[in-house]
Amino acid sequence: MSEERTEISEIGEFGLIDHLNEKIIIKNASTIKGIGDDAAVIEAGDHVKVVTTDLLLEGVHFDMSYAPLPHIGFKAVAVNVSDVAAMNAVPKQITVSIALSNRFSVEAVEALYAGINAAAEHYGVDVIGGDTTASRSGLVISVTAIGEAKKESLSFRSGAKVNDIICVTGDLGGALVGLQILEREKQVYLANPDMKPELEKYSYVTGRQLRPEARMDIVHELRELGIVPSSMMDVSDGLASELFHICKASKIGVTIYEDKLPIDKQTFDTAVELNLDPITCVLNGGEDYELLFTIDQKDFEKLEKHADIHFIGHVTKEEEGKFLVTKSGTAVQLKAQGWKHF
Amino acid sequence: MSEERTEISEIGEFGLIDHLNEKIIIKNASTIKGIGDDAAVIEAGDHVKVVTTDLLLEGVHFDMSYAPLPHIGFKAVAVNVSDVAAMNAVPKQITVSIALSNRFSVEAVEALYAGINAAAEHYGVDVIGGDTTASRSGLVISVTAIGEAKKESLSFRSGAKVNDIICVTGDLGGALVGLQILEREKQVYLANPDMKPELEKYSYVTGRQLRPEARMDIVHELRELGIVPSSMMDVSDGLASELFHICKASKIGVTIYEDKLPIDKQTFDTAVELNLDPITCVLNGGEDYELLFTIDQKDFEKLEKHADIHFIGHVTKEEEGKFLVTKSGTAVQLKAQGWKHF
Repeated sequence: MSEERTEISEIGEFGLIDHLNEKIIIKNASTIKGIGDDAAVIEAGDHVKVVTTDLLLEGVHFDMSYAPLPHIGFKAVAVNVSDVAAMNAVPKQITVSIALSNRFSVEAVEALYAGINAAAEHYGVDVIGGDTTASRSGLVISVTAIGEAKKESLSFRSGAKVNDIICVTGDLGGALVGLQILEREKQVYLANPDMKPELEKYSYVTGRQLRPEARMDIVHELRELGIVPSSMMDVSDGLASELFHICKASKIGVTIYEDKLPIDKQTFDTAVELNLDPITCVLNGGEDYELLFTIDQKDFEKLEKHADIHFIGHVTKEEEGKFLVTKSGTAVQLKAQGWKHF
Repeated sequence: MSEERTEISEIGEFGLIDHLNEKIIIKNASTIKGIGDDAAVIEAGDHVKVVTTDLLLEGVHFDMSYAPLPHIGFKAVAVNVSDVAAMNAVPKQITVSIALSNRFSVEAVEALYAGINAAAEHYGVDVIGGDTTASRSGLVISVTAIGEAKKESLSFRSGAKVNDIICVTGDLGGALVGLQILEREKQVYLANPDMKPELEKYSYVTGRQLRPEARMDIVHELRELGIVPSSMMDVSDGLASELFHICKASKIGVTIYEDKLPIDKQTFDTAVELNLDPITCVLNGGEDYELLFTIDQKDFEKLEKHADIHFIGHVTKEEEGKFLVTKSGTAVQLKAQGWKHF
């Protein structure tokens, strides 16, 4: 090894990933798409498989002091299903590996798997493999999901075209606000274990954080309507960050409108209570696992009346840049902050 | 969660896995084989994909005080390729997720990936996805490998038939003996950091532990010879343990012969030096990643002269049991110990 030492924080998580990916060369004809989208795509005869994987660690991705084990198991599956959904594909199989220390009882492992199996049932996927091993410290969960699609119905990050309409499902910012509440109540509890956490009035936002839903319903509805999004991602790092990814991959610009951004009333009220700007939560809050996608204008009519799809802006030329038009009509440059674990 | 607390050690790692797997129900027609073999099998139009995954943790599966980072990366890939080989399939894609703490520099991550990329190059697989994330403690590596095969050329654990010949590649016990040497030298070093570890004379056995080779060469040779093993596994937990898996899945018995078991001279000598019984190392040493397989007697002639395939015994009826015939001609019952991390 060289004598040099560059800290990961100097180049950041995305910088590190880009740096490592530069060295990867694709050799097999059956690899249609490697790293760089929500999932990889491989050939499978008459169709394609999409493959995605996530590694979740206690203390980094979840906190067992407030996340119940069945929710942790459910979420580990849902976040992978969400990546399959973001390719406009249907999940079919998952592998699940877990590492745990001897502070876990058999009953605790059962509770974790109850959540994994509930998610597998809910999303119609088969648990086809995995690994259960010892850990010296916390719980580690690694899930790989495999989905299926017709090659022509895949949605990549790279397909957005000028004048396409930018759509987002559900509402945003809830998972971030929920996390802040859970952290606040944890601190209250740590300071005084006799205090009962006050969570009832925050049930929507904490639910968004603890047990997110992958939007497979939208994938199926789009299929029924004959719509293939020109580009799609799931909102795991935050809306602004995801828009930046689509802009980069599709070589486009975007203009979105503050008054079109979907936010739930409880998210809004809780953000205000926490002295957070609700719009910043919507733009930069991660882990909502909603779908962000673009459609051709001709498809707008088919979705116009959909109660859970919001049209937040449109695609512009790359040189026009990335803008948010505020309620007062001012265009401000979008900034992508995203999540940073390092 | 229930009030009961059952320790994992009470039911063991295999017991826990069996217990969890009982609750898994396969729903999708495209899932040909789920949990229970070296890899799962899913339909892919004109062929099948095999899928296998492994989760490796610092301090449990590898020790950074003696395993160089490039070797750790190489091995993480090789052990998954070995599971694909054990299905008689050819690996095509892998995903690699890693979690690491800020004690790792960018250069250290590069060294790890140098090993991963070397293995990807060596086995002809594409790195198609993954995840790089923060860890609060040690290094975690999760690899999923996807391979391809014609459905009719797959080898499962369940296909061995009475009178089949039991074959094993390479030599066994080296990885275990190598691990003992590495542990011994680590203790010497910890006791006196001025002592230089004496590793040169143990280079074969330590190499078996640190940088094992998946036997894809054998898979390709069998294909060229037109041989499909009636059953196959890779030797990751130990020969005896793997034979037990094949016996259970195929509902058969086995008789193997001590004088046919392949052991390298350095493995033998080092075992003796360490006061270990060499045959116990061969039977119960894990991590050699050789292939254990059974063939129909009609295929014997084609392999008879192969320098690296050893014919260690034959398949018997289930009720005849599992026996090792010692050099003195005594038949003793085989015991499977395998690896226990818990």
